[in-house]
Amino acid sequence: MHVRKGAGKIEAHRLLASVQGMLHQCPAHGGGAGISRCSESTHGKSKDYAFEMACSNIRFGPGASKEVGQDLMNMGAKNVCVMVDPNLIPKAPFQAVADSLTRNRVNFKVFDQVRVEPSDESMNVAGEFCRQGNFDAYVAVGGGSTIDTCKVGNLLACDPSADLLKYTNAPIGRGEPINFPLKPLIAVPTTAGTGSETTGVAVYDYVPLKAKVGIASRALKPLLGIVDPTHMKTMPNRVATFSGFDVLCHALESFTAIPYNQRSPCPENPILRPAYQGSNPVSDVWSQHALKIIQKYFVRSVENPDDVEARSQMHLASSYAGIGFGNAGVHLCHGMSYPISGQVKEYRARDYSADHPLIPHGLSVVITAPAVFKFTAPACPNRHLRAAELLGSEKAIRAKESTAGDILSEVILHYMQRLGIENGLSELGFTNEDIPDLVRGTLPQHRVTKLSPKPAEDHLSQLLSDSLKVY
Amino acid sequence: MHVRKGAGKIEAHRLLASVQGMLHQCPAHGGGAGISRCSESTHGKSKDYAFEMACSNIRFGPGASKEVGQDLMNMGAKNVCVMVDPNLIPKAPFQAVADSLTRNRVNFKVFDQVRVEPSDESMNVAGEFCRQGNFDAYVAVGGGSTIDTCKVGNLLACDPSADLLKYTNAPIGRGEPINFPLKPLIAVPTTAGTGSETTGVAVYDYVPLKAKVGIASRALKPLLGIVDPTHMKTMPNRVATFSGFDVLCHALESFTAIPYNQRSPCPENPILRPAYQGSNPVSDVWSQHALKIIQKYFVRSVENPDDVEARSQMHLASSYAGIGFGNAGVHLCHGMSYPISGQVKEYRARDYSADHPLIPHGLSVVITAPAVFKFTAPACPNRHLRAAELLGSEKAIRAKESTAGDILSEVILHYMQRLGIENGLSELGFTNEDIPDLVRGTLPQHRVTKLSPKPAEDHLSQLLSDSLKVY
Repeated sequence: MHVRKGAGKIEAHRLLASVQGMLHQCPAHGGGAGISRCSESTHGKSKDYAFEMACSNIRFGPGASKEVGQDLMNMGAKNVCVMVDPNLIPKAPFQAVADSLTRNRVNFKVFDQVRVEPSDESMNVAGEFCRQGNFDAYVAVGGGSTIDTCKVGNLLACDPSADLLKYTNAPIGRGEPINFPLKPLIAVPTTAGTGSETTGVAVYDYVPLKAKVGIASRALKPLLGIVDPTHMKTMPNRVATFSGFDVLCHALESFTAIPYNQRSPCPENPILRPAYQGSNPVSDVWSQHALKIIQKYFVRSVENPDDVEARSQMHLASSYAGIGFGNAGVHLCHGMSYPISGQVKEYRARDYSADHPLIPHGLSVVITAPAVFKFTAPACPNRHLRAAELLGSEKAIRAKESTAGDILSEVILHYMQRLGIENGLSELGFTNEDIPDLVRGTLPQHRVTKLSPKPAEDHLSQLLSDSLKVY
Repeated sequence: MHVRKGAGKIEAHRLLASVQGMLHQCPAHGGGAGISRCSESTHGKSKDYAFEMACSNIRFGPGASKEVGQDLMNMGAKNVCVMVDPNLIPKAPFQAVADSLTRNRVNFKVFDQVRVEPSDESMNVAGEFCRQGNFDAYVAVGGGSTIDTCKVGNLLACDPSADLLKYTNAPIGRGEPINFPLKPLIAVPTTAGTGSETTGVAVYDYVPLKAKVGIASRALKPLLGIVDPTHMKTMPNRVATFSGFDVLCHALESFTAIPYNQRSPCPENPILRPAYQGSNPVSDVWSQHALKIIQKYFVRSVENPDDVEARSQMHLASSYAGIGFGNAGVHLCHGMSYPISGQVKEYRARDYSADHPLIPHGLSVVITAPAVFKFTAPACPNRHLRAAELLGSEKAIRAKESTAGDILSEVILHYMQRLGIENGLSELGFTNEDIPDLVRGTLPQHRVTKLSPKPAEDHLSQLLSDSLKVY
């Protein structure tokens, strides 16, 4: 077998053209090929009327990653794939996992070709490794890139004839639902950011379109996420900063996403109800709780890396926000972040050891947040004020609804300035002239942009332009 | 095959004797036979250092139970067992499920011999039905009794040589861990009480000891709970009252349970970490959120059965509290409730159509709550005050710690009086002379009593005596 390469330029243009005609398609209906739809209709409604909460089991405790060998032994795993961020191989989190597997005599192979911000090519390399390894369980040790790569490797090994686009969200991929169980995956996150240990979502750069794309299915979610706060010590300072902003945006976007019962159309079959289904009473609990923790611990966790309590709490907040957005979805900050990191020029972030230009995910997400929440506030001002209040804004408590966007943006900017975030897209290397390309890269991100509480297609250009300088 | 009868009198006495010698055993170590313990020790600690959150997927929406046929079709189920409370057969919840299965051409058999408050005998009847049916999936339509019976039926069918005590919590049962997957179970709750749709717990009356016992394992949890608030219309008034008090006690007991990192000893293998593991940051989120909903909607949901919003919210609160206590556990109110309902004399509750004397679960639980929380408050007064505040007590906000027990008890009594709960155990038919038997029935309930924040063995008699009259 050879590794599948990403689609070429011609295919890219064809896809881009097809995207234009599909902009008004619901994320719930981007795919669905291969699933029999029964005669039962959508209950005659065009909007959804239900939501579903799914999340991984989560185990939390300092040192808990040492239990992973026993877990695999308990489930009778004989041949395990351990995926790891290559930078972590000499460090404590990987050593703890490898020691535990060895002590429990669990046979394993290591895959360390994880790319920070995975691409279609790196996903295919991982898929090929998994296909050839015939593994019966997976362990991912690293940040979101590693966990996402492991989810996709597992998926490609379980459906050996599939190409990556089969399950990638429409319209870029074919968005077919996954209706078979994957092999058990245990995720051991080493950054407090993506919440990938809780979700059924994997994201990668689709190089032919220079845009991030996603695979989202409840079937992808890990069996267990082991949240071991001792691993937070290994997280470099800028990684703590950017991943913390990812948590902040997960919480803010899922809390302000369109409500689940306003998303349309209603799926014809429950398996077509997207994981990203809009805000709902369960995700609201998680996202609000994450915001409270961020208010109390985010700055402490960055400014004092030895503050074990703060780093542990941010690790929990990352999982909480993960459960929230894993069931509600994110919207514009994430939608625009995909072309922002996909179209990176020369930017390289301090503390990141990638061998290629890289805008870390959390940075690409938060950079548009001040503009985004000013824009979305009129759709649900109370939620924006509540979020600002949870983040510590005293003036949010008795503010007028008309000021909600300004107040929430101000709080976000306060965190960005305090933690030294670059002043807008211009400092990441973008100019006014890049905006049309960034808009084009955002438009196909239906999975998330359609969850904006306010239709945004016609405003993306303005939002990006307002984000060139943010202070 | 014949149905296994409960153990006889001799065995009962033997068990009771063995219980006396095991009182100081940790609920995490009641069982474990059959699980290989690896050489990895308890990290040298005697107290646990980690907790694990597990819960079913939850789908919420009015009418969502109509999707169950599609769910079963999606998972390829060919031969489904539908368990149902016999009273529900002519009613909308069962009809919706049966129609959906029929429309989707899913083959199913109905088991309607569920006993309200199941016994070892009724569990064995269900197990026999499941063993003979060779089912590949289960649906439970009813309250906690039905869902619990379905969990146990599924378990007994998946381990055809097991007797009921094999997996029943020690010391009454042998408490072996379940280390194999069960068949998928979809729970459709029709009462807003047990939260059984979210948990891996099943409870039944062990008739030889006249005490309720439990089977608790993450492996038992349903694949999916379909929380369909349209079913709340069928819930009679007293059922709404008592099941609401069950929710209230789930939330209060899990929020005040011993913290997970104070429970000892630390399990030697993560599979031995009990589902009831003490209060923890995740269960705290759920139990507090459930208390907020109770404060706003409980009285409305009982006093105005047509208040759809209130009944829907209590249905959600039941699942929320279920996730909380399913991962943290309950303690004294539940521990004492088991002999209280197991030793019922002639009491029969209005609105319950059982053909035998019956103290509904929620009633048996709340009747000792005023005494229990006065007793436990000194162990964690802030949590008791916080709970009282969430339930609407204004004086809790700035109260002294020394008054926490009185204040929380007062709020509980307020709800009990307002909703017409009987004035203590004496109105349920018990006298002072029954107390020694009730204590004896409580002592074996380690799984829950050991989670009390304050050791209670020597105080059970006083707590029960204080509960003879409560107002």
